Amino acid sequence: MSARAGIVVTGTEVLTGRVADANGPWLADRLAEAGVDLAGTVVVGDRPEDMRAALAWFASLGLDVVITSGGLGPTADDLTGEVVAAFQGRPLALDEPLEGRIMKVLEGLRSRFAHLDWDSVRAANRKQAMVPHGATVLEPVGTAPGLVVPPADGTEGPTVVVLPGPPRELQAMWPMALESRALQEALGGATAYETRELRLFGIPESEIATTLEEAEAAGVDLSVLEVTTCLRRGEVEVVTRYEPAAAGAYAALEAFIRERHVDTLFSDDGTTVDEQVARTLMERGETIATAESCTGGLLAARLTERAGSSAYALGGVVAYANAAKVRMAGVDPTLIEDFGAVSTQVSEALADGALHRFDADVGVGITGVAGPGGGTPEKPVGFVCFSVVHREGRRLTRSTRMPGSREDIRDRSTTVAMHMVRRVLAGEGEPVR
Amino acid sequence: MSARAGIVVTGTEVLTGRVADANGPWLADRLAEAGVDLAGTVVVGDRPEDMRAALAWFASLGLDVVITSGGLGPTADDLTGEVVAAFQGRPLALDEPLEGRIMKVLEGLRSRFAHLDWDSVRAANRKQAMVPHGATVLEPVGTAPGLVVPPADGTEGPTVVVLPGPPRELQAMWPMALESRALQEALGGATAYETRELRLFGIPESEIATTLEEAEAAGVDLSVLEVTTCLRRGEVEVVTRYEPAAAGAYAALEAFIRERHVDTLFSDDGTTVDEQVARTLMERGETIATAESCTGGLLAARLTERAGSSAYALGGVVAYANAAKVRMAGVDPTLIEDFGAVSTQVSEALADGALHRFDADVGVGITGVAGPGGGTPEKPVGFVCFSVVHREGRRLTRSTRMPGSREDIRDRSTTVAMHMVRRVLAGEGEPVR
Repeated sequence: MSARAGIVVTGTEVLTGRVADANGPWLADRLAEAGVDLAGTVVVGDRPEDMRAALAWFASLGLDVVITSGGLGPTADDLTGEVVAAFQGRPLALDEPLEGRIMKVLEGLRSRFAHLDWDSVRAANRKQAMVPHGATVLEPVGTAPGLVVPPADGTEGPTVVVLPGPPRELQAMWPMALESRALQEALGGATAYETRELRLFGIPESEIATTLEEAEAAGVDLSVLEVTTCLRRGEVEVVTRYEPAAAGAYAALEAFIRERHVDTLFSDDGTTVDEQVARTLMERGETIATAESCTGGLLAARLTERAGSSAYALGGVVAYANAAKVRMAGVDPTLIEDFGAVSTQVSEALADGALHRFDADVGVGITGVAGPGGGTPEKPVGFVCFSVVHREGRRLTRSTRMPGSREDIRDRSTTVAMHMVRRVLAGEGEPVR
Repeated sequence: MSARAGIVVTGTEVLTGRVADANGPWLADRLAEAGVDLAGTVVVGDRPEDMRAALAWFASLGLDVVITSGGLGPTADDLTGEVVAAFQGRPLALDEPLEGRIMKVLEGLRSRFAHLDWDSVRAANRKQAMVPHGATVLEPVGTAPGLVVPPADGTEGPTVVVLPGPPRELQAMWPMALESRALQEALGGATAYETRELRLFGIPESEIATTLEEAEAAGVDLSVLEVTTCLRRGEVEVVTRYEPAAAGAYAALEAFIRERHVDTLFSDDGTTVDEQVARTLMERGETIATAESCTGGLLAARLTERAGSSAYALGGVVAYANAAKVRMAGVDPTLIEDFGAVSTQVSEALADGALHRFDADVGVGITGVAGPGGGTPEKPVGFVCFSVVHREGRRLTRSTRMPGSREDIRDRSTTVAMHMVRRVLAGEGEPVR
């Protein structure tokens, strides 16, 4: 039996979507690694009664651990500490040494906000040093300490781990929480699970559903595997979680999928296409440059997302205006006149321009109609042309039509381009004329 | 009394964070507009018992409406329809005309997936046409229809609105749900709220907390205003929701904030800095171009995010390698030698290069240390230099040090740059030497 946990994310700004929640998903991954089963994540606003209701719900499900994120800040609507203390029946008291340590952090930040009303900041932050009786304090990474709060002595119920909202602070604090005796006791003997991921590009999710059914019919024991499939940024991910004893069943499933989807399975070790492209470029000492129109810099941003990307990403041109395509990427203006700015011919010229102007080994060109305006019957919204060229003299060019919003089309285009880069690096492509 | 609602987002891929949830926040905004109070959002995996528990929890809170997103797909783990039907005590039956309409949609998509096993797709999709007795069907936007499922006749409980997971489908379907008689009845007489937003740049969130306390002390009636403050991408947002009768109290609060924060309040009408920059450029017929190093194209991508941005965004250079700074943005190599690639001098040369090479009215240059490596004592990780130059001969240049991860630093840098562009467009800046 795994320990079971729930996550409570607090904050009206998260509930209303003004801030995207990064903590729920991050904690979900950490719990999975620790072999803890996640029952659910609840997002509530800053109203104490809603937070109490969420804690009570998770308690009623018999969970072992509830993790809260947020509501530890200095403002009056930051009430998590008080609500959790009351819920666990553990009165709050000021921890003076802790208050002193928080003050030291604040003094260090003082120069950054010279125009601040300092007394009010200090008063507002004093409440961050209020600790429920018997709770374990997790040292602050920012100014807010975290807490591990067991149920009141002699009572049953979940241990509540209270973490700050800023992802950087929460992530730095989690290992301390996990090492605390209070949390270790609540988790008891959690089973460690194995997690494996397969990634495929170029097939619909429903085809994987069919494959799973056929695998089962062929004798693969799916009952011991927890298989999740999902479509993310145009790729199908098959994530399987299983107890170590089910390794044989997983191996049989993976072999079955591999045989049926040899053309589209590009990752069996959890690596993303971004990691594969980065690794290949690094290993070979090759470089890449881009010339983008409709994606407006998103591909260059994606190629430079990773630490150390300066080893292979030289840069790129965002050639949004036609004049910029000609001037900055060296596109022959007659190509634009003859075939239109959105054409495979122009995507090839953009790729060539990126290759030559940056003196790169790989050049990528993208041009398309991101919409919502600008579509025509021949080149509707979502029609995008791609070309990837390698210095060694081979090239892949294609055009496709993508569904979705302007944002979807721009994002999905970077995925299509990344896969074309992967294929060209693997040796695919036609000889350059 | 407002109607109260809860949101249940289903999908193991969302719970585990493999897919970011766009639907909860989007629905939260729509509910706020409709004057419906949102009690909370629950994310659960694809296990039917967890989804049932979430529905039961919301029912126990006495909510009027529960909205579910996801779990309507063709795969075996898509179980929302069945779970909701059972929860509401309304048996499922095949809606044959609906099945026919779904088939028509699938036929239209057939060419896109020529390699598909067609029979299994059709069988998998048949379950999407199963409808609980007495439910209102919302016509499919993709292949999955939505549902509005009232509690069983003669019983109390929330009306459940079942919507598909893909944001594009969910968003297109929501107006249909809202117009349905079943949902209208469940919502009863919801009060319409006013929502107003103020945005400030360059102060910490705690200073706004102090301002709110002082406003209350000065006689502003905060009890009739629901004020939420949050820090988003380096900006402080103050969102206030109130019933129409509290308009006077809001006006007093806004005046108080305006007086205290005149230097940092940049938006009082809900507009973002992106919208303000776009509007000013459009109104004046001016153009902008970028030369980015550490942000790697994110600023160009942000400037081209909006539909119609081709009217003012000419493009940009991503000059990641030093050679690219020289070759593609015209940076004098002696500046890089003398001051380093990360220096205000190089950021000015990048801005000038963007201005001249793209023949733009505004040029932006960014260079910095995004980390996690590459920091030095003088130029640590997070140190970023910016320059914005206007063709009319004025320039703003600054350097700053930002906290956080590589991703935070890159993202926050685009916000700093956008605010500098806004200020230069408003006439600020030193004369260009």
